[in-house]
Amino acid sequence: MTENTTIDRPTPAISAAQSEVEEQLIRNVLASFDSCDNPRLKQLMQAIVRHLHAFIRDVRLTEDEWNTAISFLTEVGHITDDRRQEFILLSDVFGASMQTINVNNEAYKNATEATVFGPFFVDDAPQIEHGGDIAGGATGQPCWVEGTVADTDGNPIQNARIEVWEADEDGFYDVQYGDDRVSGRAHLYSDDDGRFRFWGLTPTPYPIPHDGPVGRMLAATGRSPMRASHLHFMVTAPGQRALVTHIFVRGDELLTSDTVFGVKQSLIKDFVEQPAGTPAPDGRDLGDSTWARAEFDIVLAPEI
Amino acid sequence: MTENTTIDRPTPAISAAQSEVEEQLIRNVLASFDSCDNPRLKQLMQAIVRHLHAFIRDVRLTEDEWNTAISFLTEVGHITDDRRQEFILLSDVFGASMQTINVNNEAYKNATEATVFGPFFVDDAPQIEHGGDIAGGATGQPCWVEGTVADTDGNPIQNARIEVWEADEDGFYDVQYGDDRVSGRAHLYSDDDGRFRFWGLTPTPYPIPHDGPVGRMLAATGRSPMRASHLHFMVTAPGQRALVTHIFVRGDELLTSDTVFGVKQSLIKDFVEQPAGTPAPDGRDLGDSTWARAEFDIVLAPEI
Repeated sequence: MTENTTIDRPTPAISAAQSEVEEQLIRNVLASFDSCDNPRLKQLMQAIVRHLHAFIRDVRLTEDEWNTAISFLTEVGHITDDRRQEFILLSDVFGASMQTINVNNEAYKNATEATVFGPFFVDDAPQIEHGGDIAGGATGQPCWVEGTVADTDGNPIQNARIEVWEADEDGFYDVQYGDDRVSGRAHLYSDDDGRFRFWGLTPTPYPIPHDGPVGRMLAATGRSPMRASHLHFMVTAPGQRALVTHIFVRGDELLTSDTVFGVKQSLIKDFVEQPAGTPAPDGRDLGDSTWARAEFDIVLAPEI
Repeated sequence: MTENTTIDRPTPAISAAQSEVEEQLIRNVLASFDSCDNPRLKQLMQAIVRHLHAFIRDVRLTEDEWNTAISFLTEVGHITDDRRQEFILLSDVFGASMQTINVNNEAYKNATEATVFGPFFVDDAPQIEHGGDIAGGATGQPCWVEGTVADTDGNPIQNARIEVWEADEDGFYDVQYGDDRVSGRAHLYSDDDGRFRFWGLTPTPYPIPHDGPVGRMLAATGRSPMRASHLHFMVTAPGQRALVTHIFVRGDELLTSDTVFGVKQSLIKDFVEQPAGTPAPDGRDLGDSTWARAEFDIVLAPEI
């Protein structure tokens, strides 16, 4: 950790009188929520007050900086619409989305770890059969993905609903094309032995949308907008905690700098490249195309 | 202070392993700003990270609450336009605007205290002469305001620019009417003795715009949207720190619950009601109308 990392460092030296002015204001704002009759809402509001004021005092925020923040948030609001959610991007690049995932998905025995949901999930993706293909026209290297769904005692879970979605080789999800295509996404169900298998695309890296204020902020701070290559999963089964996660590609140089901080060691998998001509597991004719294969054994925690 | 007021209370009990997951994420996010070559920007970004993550961990923010926050900010963004600034309102009702004012306007000797700027200032308000009227058609009880502008050694400051603006008796500023009227605002200059005098309107209480998400938040938390009655001043003179402030009306029952936390004791003034028929200071014929008078002696701090 750098010298800036101490979370509760004291406010820079200011006079006792000035400190009292600032602290009295905090007490007044906290007290304004005293008659909130929803205890959780009251707790959240008062916590926002404490942390927001601590931030302003900690950095001695200037009035120009405050104005810049208001303008920035205004831009974030104005670029956000039904297809683009810049506030989620903002939360993502500050690690706030990932921290919320962490807080709500505490490690449980050997259960698979969760990571960020991202803005590109779509309800009602088509169902595929075992061994089916999620590409639906999306281009990229074919990738055979197989694995199991089990509980933390090792019992296979049959009929778990498995949603998978990913970007194409150009780094775009179907919904980013602005037409009605549905590609690079599907759902399937684990079989009687808890197993699943499907054809997808070998994941490739892509930038988060970075032509807006969040992209400008990344550029101004010397950060890359790139996400590490990944394939999204959401797995649900009765009595089990819903799992939202990705698998990442071992060897991807972006694993250590994923711009939304989604990478966890346990989620990095071998995507083993297969030379052209290697017979596919389901006998599919891949011509002279290379392909890849990956395994992902999923363990669901029990519902709390 | 209530039991919730401790600013740095420890995170609720979680396992050491879980704590390490959460802290490792914070370290990663902080490190992502390490190559930012603007030291102040880096400091601000890393401070946001520290306080934002401390908030999420402190309250153990749920995924539903995170979603609600994203939706709320999206609404704040969408209602904001050239005439309405809901992000400023949001900052105001959390006391963040006032805290920023506090941080940047440290008490200096007997200099007049600053308070929030608010969203209703307009450049190029008309100039009036000494004793002129700022109403410009805005309705309300006439109010004679006079005082001096001086430095902290008591020397009068001549030719200080004094901007004044206020709501009418219905609680609206001119810019809220959606037409091109200019009323309830003007600027004038202090005279050779540092004195000023003008006719305004006796301030009346009004709600901040509360038909949007910020208003809904205030309602949900049991807070009033009302501001204490006030008259805005912005006073500038070469070599002096610019002063943005209000004067408030002694006796106003909203002084202790101003929804943007702008009230300071030193800014509460007597607005002395004058019975109908009392001769006006400048001989103006007020017919059978009551009127009020107030004094405000302004002391400017030297520019840093």
